[in-house]
Amino acid sequence: MSALTETVTTDADLGRQRLARAALSYLAEPGDPALGTLLQACPPDQVLAAIKAGELPRACRETDRARWAALARALSRWRLRLPDLPPEDRLAARAAGDARIRLACPGDPEWPAALDDLGLAAPCMLWLRGNANLSATAGRSVSIVGSRTATGYGAHVAGEIAGDLAEQGWTIVSGGAYGIDAAAHRGALTAGGVTIVVLACGVDHAYPAGHDTLFAAIADAGLIVSELPPGSHPTRLRFLVRNRIIAALTGGTVVIEAGERSGALNTARHAAELNRPLMAVPGPVTSAQSAGCHRIIRDFGGTLVTCAEDVRGMLEPIGADGWTPGRAGSGAADPRDDLDLESARVLDAFPVRAIVGLSTIARKACVEPSTVLRCIGVLAGFGFIERADGGWRLTRKAV
Amino acid sequence: MSALTETVTTDADLGRQRLARAALSYLAEPGDPALGTLLQACPPDQVLAAIKAGELPRACRETDRARWAALARALSRWRLRLPDLPPEDRLAARAAGDARIRLACPGDPEWPAALDDLGLAAPCMLWLRGNANLSATAGRSVSIVGSRTATGYGAHVAGEIAGDLAEQGWTIVSGGAYGIDAAAHRGALTAGGVTIVVLACGVDHAYPAGHDTLFAAIADAGLIVSELPPGSHPTRLRFLVRNRIIAALTGGTVVIEAGERSGALNTARHAAELNRPLMAVPGPVTSAQSAGCHRIIRDFGGTLVTCAEDVRGMLEPIGADGWTPGRAGSGAADPRDDLDLESARVLDAFPVRAIVGLSTIARKACVEPSTVLRCIGVLAGFGFIERADGGWRLTRKAV
Repeated sequence: MSALTETVTTDADLGRQRLARAALSYLAEPGDPALGTLLQACPPDQVLAAIKAGELPRACRETDRARWAALARALSRWRLRLPDLPPEDRLAARAAGDARIRLACPGDPEWPAALDDLGLAAPCMLWLRGNANLSATAGRSVSIVGSRTATGYGAHVAGEIAGDLAEQGWTIVSGGAYGIDAAAHRGALTAGGVTIVVLACGVDHAYPAGHDTLFAAIADAGLIVSELPPGSHPTRLRFLVRNRIIAALTGGTVVIEAGERSGALNTARHAAELNRPLMAVPGPVTSAQSAGCHRIIRDFGGTLVTCAEDVRGMLEPIGADGWTPGRAGSGAADPRDDLDLESARVLDAFPVRAIVGLSTIARKACVEPSTVLRCIGVLAGFGFIERADGGWRLTRKAV
Repeated sequence: MSALTETVTTDADLGRQRLARAALSYLAEPGDPALGTLLQACPPDQVLAAIKAGELPRACRETDRARWAALARALSRWRLRLPDLPPEDRLAARAAGDARIRLACPGDPEWPAALDDLGLAAPCMLWLRGNANLSATAGRSVSIVGSRTATGYGAHVAGEIAGDLAEQGWTIVSGGAYGIDAAAHRGALTAGGVTIVVLACGVDHAYPAGHDTLFAAIADAGLIVSELPPGSHPTRLRFLVRNRIIAALTGGTVVIEAGERSGALNTARHAAELNRPLMAVPGPVTSAQSAGCHRIIRDFGGTLVTCAEDVRGMLEPIGADGWTPGRAGSGAADPRDDLDLESARVLDAFPVRAIVGLSTIARKACVEPSTVLRCIGVLAGFGFIERADGGWRLTRKAV
């Protein structure tokens, strides 16, 4: 009986904490480290109560003066938004989740542990819309981001890489913007894979509006994720703060086309700070849209990648899945490369059409006659030369 | 009198040694380390005499057995070509130089000290054709090499970078091939600069033949250089061995377009082995012609460069000539970047058209009213917002 009571109590408490986290998402801007600090000191419902009461929780009062003042300022900041909180019953319904929108909170099975790497800037919870399981799909994921004003080249490469990775079971995470983001999402969907969009507005809000069909498809085959509660609108800063989620959620970040001031560089910086592999696809140096990618490779320590195989090579330990570096199938080996230096010299000395004797070849190749004899054997063995009337000549293979 | 006699003797000796080096260039293939070994042990005329006599010079007889055997084999190799040596008077005339073709030997004022970095594979001398001074122009030089089957993109970029560097007094060194090499030479010539072509055949031999006009222009404004004596034809190996001269002669190597198996990768490897800065220009990942460049950046430790400024940054110590990294003039600063986080938040919260009061802004931005007041001052100061009837609104600058 007592064990049952305890479980019931725990479940009720869990529900209260989830409700509090949902409420906090209405009050604090995403990534506010003051909220992270408070949540490290006491449970969410106490933080919410403190905001409502306008008084810091007891656990925080023992901190030093400067920190205390910063937290107090944060508290009064968040109090400004108390009027925006939905009525408790509506909030409770939302926090309980429905067929369309649900919550993921730290401790939930669906919560991705990777987000904890954000420390004080970790989200206090996430709003989700879609059929995929967040932690399961994010566990093997890569973010592909880039310019809104992508070129045909960039959109093509983003679609190809995203599609190839999605086919191999990688979840493609991006920001849902026009250009590279959309090409990456679409590439994954076309390949029948899973894709996640992390928004800088509520998950019920299609931004950009032109992407409502795309977002519906993503919800169907993947997930729409946001720290901001339903009904929230995007702002410039929210895009930047959102980028840290994209970087933290995934095993690595690939930038495909980014101008010198693209928001994708912000995501790249987050990935580098989080010690996630940072990759960039190069492009023509004559294209301003590739300038940011080139800067990532040269100045940010990013790795140049050209295809899905390259990306996989950065995300998986070498050899773990039979991966070998480089684009598969390119650059078939030249059999000449297998020749020793002297045989190569002898082959080089053969005229294109004429038949030559050993002594001529020896002089032309500057190789001793005894060595020439050995080399002739090697070259005939490789099929580069053949016997002819009075000497040797090149075969078709060698010409 | 005695001093004069000594000078005359020394000059005569110098002439004899130069003549011997010229003769050696007919007998040994370029880069033969056996020749380098012998030339370290005794003067060129003794090496030549040893070849003619078929007996290693006394200085080499004290070496160990394996080394001795290798040198003896080399000697008999070179003896095979004794019939190719021009008659002594013609050789002497050549070694003395004429208006068209001259020699540069180690110790000459025109000899570039950088070539000594090649060690045993250093050339024993160079044949020159053209009006420029080799050591003077190579002292501030960069090699630009790449694919023979360049795309329009590659040829354009090669011409631009070569032209910009040539304008700034850099000598452009390349291999005279079709494609990138030719575009680099032409870019330098068009800019009125100096360019050097290092050939894998005699300097009197235009290879490829289609470049005879280009080579004439290079001889006029720069130099044609080869280790091979006049009349020599190119072979596959000679191209590869030639590449070490291009890499060693210059302060750094830039590869612009190279397939996975391009000879330019061989030059790149030489540059890396010689500790010269190795650079590559990226291109579309969809282009096979850029695959080698991407490999250089990813696997060979090459630096990604996009323009002449980037190249200069690698060749000159930072700050030596007012150089700053990155493409000049790109990415004008966004004044929003100068805002503190709170002011940026407040600016972000402004609606596009409406006039708003302080309390609305405080709630939307989630910033305390007293802080909002400070931020309003900052934003008005930057010209982002202006007073309006009953509140504040964005200026045109901010929208």
